[in-house]
Amino acid sequence: MTITITAFERSPDGGKGLARDTRVRWALEEAGQPYEVRLVSFRAMKEPEHLALHPFGQIPTYEEGELALFETGSIVFHIAERHPGLLPDEANARARAITWMFAALNTVEPPILELVTAKVLEGDKPWAKERLPLVVERIRNRLNQLSARLGDADWLDGAFSAGDLMMVSVLLRLRPSGILNEYPSLAAYVARGEARPAYKRAFDAQLAVNAGKPSTG
Amino acid sequence: MTITITAFERSPDGGKGLARDTRVRWALEEAGQPYEVRLVSFRAMKEPEHLALHPFGQIPTYEEGELALFETGSIVFHIAERHPGLLPDEANARARAITWMFAALNTVEPPILELVTAKVLEGDKPWAKERLPLVVERIRNRLNQLSARLGDADWLDGAFSAGDLMMVSVLLRLRPSGILNEYPSLAAYVARGEARPAYKRAFDAQLAVNAGKPSTG
Repeated sequence: MTITITAFERSPDGGKGLARDTRVRWALEEAGQPYEVRLVSFRAMKEPEHLALHPFGQIPTYEEGELALFETGSIVFHIAERHPGLLPDEANARARAITWMFAALNTVEPPILELVTAKVLEGDKPWAKERLPLVVERIRNRLNQLSARLGDADWLDGAFSAGDLMMVSVLLRLRPSGILNEYPSLAAYVARGEARPAYKRAFDAQLAVNAGKPSTG
Repeated sequence: MTITITAFERSPDGGKGLARDTRVRWALEEAGQPYEVRLVSFRAMKEPEHLALHPFGQIPTYEEGELALFETGSIVFHIAERHPGLLPDEANARARAITWMFAALNTVEPPILELVTAKVLEGDKPWAKERLPLVVERIRNRLNQLSARLGDADWLDGAFSAGDLMMVSVLLRLRPSGILNEYPSLAAYVARGEARPAYKRAFDAQLAVNAGKPSTG
């Protein structure tokens, strides 16, 4: 059955790979699964046809036969459950890898999203400059804890997993701020993720869309 | 094997059930699984012994034989995968229920956590009063979308699932603000969750801890 995902017609980041379709593309590339991409405009994302697929009017979505999913974490998990390469076979190791998926999305990403909000949505507010250090401090607290746990390991728990895919993707959002480079071990961890051939294919596919070339995904 | 979770020795909410151990207790009660509770103080949560279990120094954690997990979403999913009552059997319905778990934690909870941050951590800042309406507006955007999807259904997708357990738990955090009551269908949805016998047992068990009585969990 054909897998079809949705992505921005034009990503707000201009092709830096920070839009969430990159996470799904990466998982599909790790799993060796071909996929098609349907591009949607900002206007179309808020219309009934897309809202039927994604109640919060976002991308990506995932369609495969009768199945329609939204929410990146869920889509990546669905792919990881059905194909080898993204979750360990052993039950306890698998549960721990899933733990890191949730930790990336519910513990590490929220303070990072607050930084995006502070800069993009509230950048012109009178409190923007004075408030920013508080937001950054909350991110640093999480990164201190994360780098302490990672130590000098390559990945968060044994071999590369969907947990690493999600954590690397979340941390990538920090790169434009310069904060990631304050943590050399986390910067190296992210670089290891980006060096994976599957990541490179995913990145190139989203870049081709945003550079105006047809998607090869 | 005995299941042991951790919870606050004294919850910051004084027993309103908003601490995240309530979500895990609820899942265990839905699954009919007995469990033990180890209470931890704020000080102990930041010490090496607890950080070995939970790298971000939070509660709850979950221990069962050799397995140690953190992150509420992952723990609830682990319980839901192993016991009937929290995930549908049919594969596509199961994937959609998991989607709602991730949607609760990664799309609906982050703006709600921003409100907690705005009130608790930044309540004394000079921008607090002027900024609050922006934070509330972002929550309302999500609730508008969520209530549109729920419509007049009892639960988000067919029968009650771990997705509803998580969404109800996330929405409960809004009750003190009064925002939840602006959405009668969502308030009724949350009330249906609270009316479940398993939720009541979970709520009572955390209340007993915070009222200073021994846990019966």
